[in-house]
Amino acid sequence: MDGVKLVKQRIIGNSKGNIYHFIKNNDNEFNKFGECYFSFVNNSEIKGWKKHNKMILNIVVPLGKIKFVIYNSETKENFEVTLSSENYQRLTVFPGLWVAFKGLSELNMLVNLASIEHDPNESENIELFKINYNW
Amino acid sequence: MDGVKLVKQRIIGNSKGNIYHFIKNNDNEFNKFGECYFSFVNNSEIKGWKKHNKMILNIVVPLGKIKFVIYNSETKENFEVTLSSENYQRLTVFPGLWVAFKGLSELNMLVNLASIEHDPNESENIELFKINYNW
Repeated sequence: MDGVKLVKQRIIGNSKGNIYHFIKNNDNEFNKFGECYFSFVNNSEIKGWKKHNKMILNIVVPLGKIKFVIYNSETKENFEVTLSSENYQRLTVFPGLWVAFKGLSELNMLVNLASIEHDPNESENIELFKINYNW
Repeated sequence: MDGVKLVKQRIIGNSKGNIYHFIKNNDNEFNKFGECYFSFVNNSEIKGWKKHNKMILNIVVPLGKIKFVIYNSETKENFEVTLSSENYQRLTVFPGLWVAFKGLSELNMLVNLASIEHDPNESENIELFKINYNW
């Protein structure tokens, strides 16, 4: 889907505790550093829909399992992917797309490295039922 | 301790899952974006000692509980702090200090936003017993 990219990241095994790569300055998908934050999503809960008009998202799921659905309201396309340490990919989402995500295990956390700092004026929120998707 | 800084970060409560702030472009402690990665450390395991000669570390612990010990080999000072979601502070460590950390609960994860990309030539590792600390 245009505006969405997935890139597999490395998990480096270590008997004391693994190391998870996320994003580097030289990665093609790295744009600008605005902010980094974490979002937990409880089992079966869905956060969304949110559309950013300026922010580029770079997301990984180092803990638990989260299903992401991305919807383009112009083309009516949607894209879905479930991320976890078993499917450890970095998801890049460009502005202009609706995003929602659902927790699929007991403890689920995403990390987002965003290209700009949080600004409530650059994003829009709509209620879940406003975009038809069979969760 | 010189070269070490702690800054409390916000946790925003949400019934679907909390949001944890980590670091923003405009924060005083933000220097440069080199890389972001995660390190798990199992219960009772200790990772360290490592000294970076160029990298500035910015660390939070969104999951579990981790004790950090920082040692200045010139002044013989040490500094310790235990971070978790109960004591949710961002730890900044400047180059030239020895760092080690120990997992204190079942599942422990730190997030590090580093000022440069990983480069094995800018850091030194020594075995745990080489610096006397009663873990």
